[in-house]
Amino acid sequence: MKSVVLQVEGMTCGHCKSAVEGAALSVDGVKQAAVDLAANTVSVEMDEQVDVNLVKQEIEDQGYDVN
Amino acid sequence: MKSVVLQVEGMTCGHCKSAVEGAALSVDGVKQAAVDLAANTVSVEMDEQVDVNLVKQEIEDQGYDVN
Repeated sequence: MKSVVLQVEGMTCGHCKSAVEGAALSVDGVKQAAVDLAANTVSVEMDEQVDVNLVKQEIEDQGYDVN
Repeated sequence: MKSVVLQVEGMTCGHCKSAVEGAALSVDGVKQAAVDLAANTVSVEMDEQVDVNLVKQEIEDQGYDVN
């Protein structure tokens, strides 16, 4: 298992939180995703073999910028 | 047909726009609902017999304050 904290721009409300967490969790092997709206971050826990770029892509597909 | 423009607080993003428009449109007799995010308003067109308070209530149930 590995964890990353991604900086996500553009999240403003509970719907955004759900959209970003759902996007991360849609990737195979992602086990947990938790948005911190105040910090503009999402913490993601995933199996070792998951490509973090896939997670970033899914979040970007929801309309948010990931750094 | 009648129109009202309601002031809605707390809308920040496209999800909020959809939630508020959907709430308004869920009321029987409401024909159109259009959020202006920059103005914090929703314009609603509805049949004469619709009670505007029902529309307000549905929007408030989504977590927004309506003035």
